[in-house]
Amino acid sequence: MNFDEAAMAVRRGKKGIIETLPRAVLKTRDDLSTLYTPGVAQPCREIVKDKDLSFDLTCRGNMIAVVSDGTRVLGLGDIGPEAAMPVMEGKSILFKVFGGVNAVPICLDTKDPQKFIETVKMLQPSFAGINLEDISSPKCYEIETTLKKEMDIPVFHDDQHGTAIAALAGVIGALRVVGKKLATAKIVINGAGAAGASIGRLLVRAGAEQVIMVDRFGALYEGMEGLNSVQAELASLTNKEHVQGTLADVVKGADLLLGVSAPHIFTKEIIRSMNADAIVFAMANPIPETDYESAKAAGARVVGTGRSDSPNQINNVLVFPGIFRGALAVRARHINEDMKIAAAYAIAGLISDAELQEEYVIPDAFDERVAPAVAAAVAKAAMESGSARIERDPEEIRQEAATQIAELHAMIDKLHG
Amino acid sequence: MNFDEAAMAVRRGKKGIIETLPRAVLKTRDDLSTLYTPGVAQPCREIVKDKDLSFDLTCRGNMIAVVSDGTRVLGLGDIGPEAAMPVMEGKSILFKVFGGVNAVPICLDTKDPQKFIETVKMLQPSFAGINLEDISSPKCYEIETTLKKEMDIPVFHDDQHGTAIAALAGVIGALRVVGKKLATAKIVINGAGAAGASIGRLLVRAGAEQVIMVDRFGALYEGMEGLNSVQAELASLTNKEHVQGTLADVVKGADLLLGVSAPHIFTKEIIRSMNADAIVFAMANPIPETDYESAKAAGARVVGTGRSDSPNQINNVLVFPGIFRGALAVRARHINEDMKIAAAYAIAGLISDAELQEEYVIPDAFDERVAPAVAAAVAKAAMESGSARIERDPEEIRQEAATQIAELHAMIDKLHG
Repeated sequence: MNFDEAAMAVRRGKKGIIETLPRAVLKTRDDLSTLYTPGVAQPCREIVKDKDLSFDLTCRGNMIAVVSDGTRVLGLGDIGPEAAMPVMEGKSILFKVFGGVNAVPICLDTKDPQKFIETVKMLQPSFAGINLEDISSPKCYEIETTLKKEMDIPVFHDDQHGTAIAALAGVIGALRVVGKKLATAKIVINGAGAAGASIGRLLVRAGAEQVIMVDRFGALYEGMEGLNSVQAELASLTNKEHVQGTLADVVKGADLLLGVSAPHIFTKEIIRSMNADAIVFAMANPIPETDYESAKAAGARVVGTGRSDSPNQINNVLVFPGIFRGALAVRARHINEDMKIAAAYAIAGLISDAELQEEYVIPDAFDERVAPAVAAAVAKAAMESGSARIERDPEEIRQEAATQIAELHAMIDKLHG
Repeated sequence: MNFDEAAMAVRRGKKGIIETLPRAVLKTRDDLSTLYTPGVAQPCREIVKDKDLSFDLTCRGNMIAVVSDGTRVLGLGDIGPEAAMPVMEGKSILFKVFGGVNAVPICLDTKDPQKFIETVKMLQPSFAGINLEDISSPKCYEIETTLKKEMDIPVFHDDQHGTAIAALAGVIGALRVVGKKLATAKIVINGAGAAGASIGRLLVRAGAEQVIMVDRFGALYEGMEGLNSVQAELASLTNKEHVQGTLADVVKGADLLLGVSAPHIFTKEIIRSMNADAIVFAMANPIPETDYESAKAAGARVVGTGRSDSPNQINNVLVFPGIFRGALAVRARHINEDMKIAAAYAIAGLISDAELQEEYVIPDAFDERVAPAVAAAVAKAAMESGSARIERDPEEIRQEAATQIAELHAMIDKLHG
C-alpha cells in the first residue's frame, strides 16, 4: 500500500479529518436556551465562584492542545506551522481514538521560544493539558521546562517522554525474556538528542545503573568537552566509569543497545560484539539503525524497532493517550517521573509470562487494554507522588476508560465505518 | 422550563458538551499509517510547497476559533476566561449545528488588548477564521481593528456586527410590512455602545439617511462634548440636522425606534409619540426596553425583541454561522460591509410577500434555509467586492451547505437523539 497516496486521498478536498461535534441535540428553542442563552449563564456563575468547575462543566475538562511551531516535524525538519498541521491533526485523532481524550491541533506562527511560551500560557483557561510536539532542540527543553514551571495544567513533550516511556516498557519486557535485570544490565544508548536524553534519564531513574550514552563524538562522560547542559547533566547521571571511545568500543559486551540516531549504523559487527542474549532496539524513524532480520541474523535475541512491519514495535501511541487520560482523571499538576515509570510498567505488565516471547515483548499498538491500564497506573502514581488534585479509584478509572473508548469506537464505526 | 437547572443538568459531570471526532475510521495498521506516520508526511510536503493547501488538506479549512477574554460576558460583566468558557463552548456548538462550521472555544488568560492581539495572531496557521466574543468596549474596537489589519483570515466581532446584521434584516422586513423606505425612514437608535454603534454604521451604509443615535446624554451630534472616537465618527455619519435633546425629544415622529440599551425604558409615552405605523425593536438582553405586548398596546405596528418567547426575534444565530460559512467557502480576506449587507438582505429575502406580516418580519432561528442563503450571498458579495481569494458558484455553495447541514443533523440525531 502506498501510504503517501492514501494519506492524500483521505485528505484532499476534505478540509480536515477531525471535526467538532456537540454531545447533545439542538433542535428546539428549549435546547437553544439550555445549551446557549439564557441557560448558559448559570454554569458561568458557578465557575466564577470556583474556577476548577470549568474542568467539570465545560469541554476544558477533557480537552488538550497539541501544540507545535513546526520547527522539527517528523524527518522533514523545519517546515513551518502550516505544513505541521497534518501531523498535529493526526496526533489529535490518536489522542481521541486511543485515549478518548479530545485534542485540538494548534500550530503557532513563531520560532521564538519566548513567544511560544507566552502564547501557550495564554491558552491555559481553555485546556486541561498541553502536548508539545515536533519542536526543535534545544529550545524544546526551555519551552517545556518553563511551561511546566509556570502552568497549572500538565505539559508533556511527547517526542522526549513518550518515546522514553515506550522504550522503557520494551526494555522491561525484553529483559524479562532474557532473564536479566535493569539494575545490572549494561545498556548503551546511541543518540543523545531530545529522545535519547529522555530515554537515558528515565532508564536511570527507573533503576538502571550501567547506562552509557553515545553521540557522534563517542561516549558521553562527565567533564567531556562541548556538551550542552542537557548532555552534561546526562553525563553526570550515566557512565560512572567515565568510559571513553566510539560506539564500536563501548558496545562490546553490552546487554542492550538502544538507538535513536540514524539509519543502518548498527552493523553486524557491532551487534556481534555484544553480550549473549543481546537486546537491540533500533528506534530511528522511518529507517531504523538496523532492520529486524539483520539484527537477528547478527545474533541479537530480542529486537525492537519503531516500524509496524516487524515485531516489537516501540510506538508512542502506547503511551500518550493513557498518560493524558490518567493525568486528567485526577487533575494532575504535572506528569512526573513516577507517573512515567508507572506508565511503562503498566504497558509491560499487560504481557503475561505465558505470552511473553522474543517476538512479543511489548503490546500491539491496537491492544485496547493499553490506554486504560496506563491511565489507571498514571493516576495512581499521581496520587501517590502528590501530583494529583483529586483522589479516585484507579480501577474505576481503568474501567471507565475501557467503556468510554469502546463506546467511542462503536460511534466512529456508526458514522464512518 | 427552568433553563438554569437544565443548563447545569446537561453539563454537570459531562466535561463538555462539545467534542472532537475523527472523520475517518482508525482500526488497522494501514489506517494508522494513512492518518498518521508515515503517510502524513505527504500532505506536509504538499503544504510546504503551497501554504494555502493547509485549508484544503487539514481541519484548518473548516475550523474557526471563538475567542474571548471574558471581560464582558452576557449580562454578567467581567467574569474572567474560565467562567466565559460555557458561553464560548455554546457558541461553538451553534457554529457547527447551524452552519456546519467547526469551532473551538478559546478563552485567553489576559485582559491586556496587546497580549490578546499577539496571541490571536500566533494562532493564525491553525484556523480559517476568528470570531471575537464578549470583549469589553472600547478595547474590542482596538482588538478587532488591529487583527483585521494584521491577519490574513476573517476576523469578526459578533457582538457588534452579528447584532447589526440581524437588526438590519429585521428592519428591512419591518419596513416592507409598513411600506416605508430605508432611505427616508426616520430612525432613532437608543444605545451607542459596541452593538448600537455597529447598527448605526450598518444602517447608514445600507442607505438610511435619517438616523439619530441616542445615548444616556441624549442625541449624538457632530461636535458634541465627551464622545469617544467611535461615537464621534458615528455622530459625523448620522443626525445631519444636528438635532439635540433626550430620547423623548428626538423620538417624536420617528418611524423606527431601535434599542440596544436597558430594560423598560421605552415607555408607552415614547412609543405613542412616534409616527404612524411605528416600528419598535427592543433588543436589550435578556430584558428588552419594552415587552412585545406593551409596545403593541402603545400603538407600535411592528415589534421585535431578542426574546424567543415573542414574535420577530432578532437573533445573531441567523447571522454568524452563514457569515463564516460563506467567507470560508471563498477564502475571503475580510468580512466587509458589502458582505454584511448582503447577509441581511439574504435573511430578509427568505420571507415572501405572501408570508410577510407584522408578526413575521424575520425568519425563525431554526429555519434551515437561513445559513445556506446567507453563506451564498456573503460569498457572492465577497467575490464582487474583491475580498474572495477563490471564485465559486454561490448557488453551489448554498446547496452544498444545505446538504451538509442536513446530513450533520441526521448524524447528531443518530448519536444523541
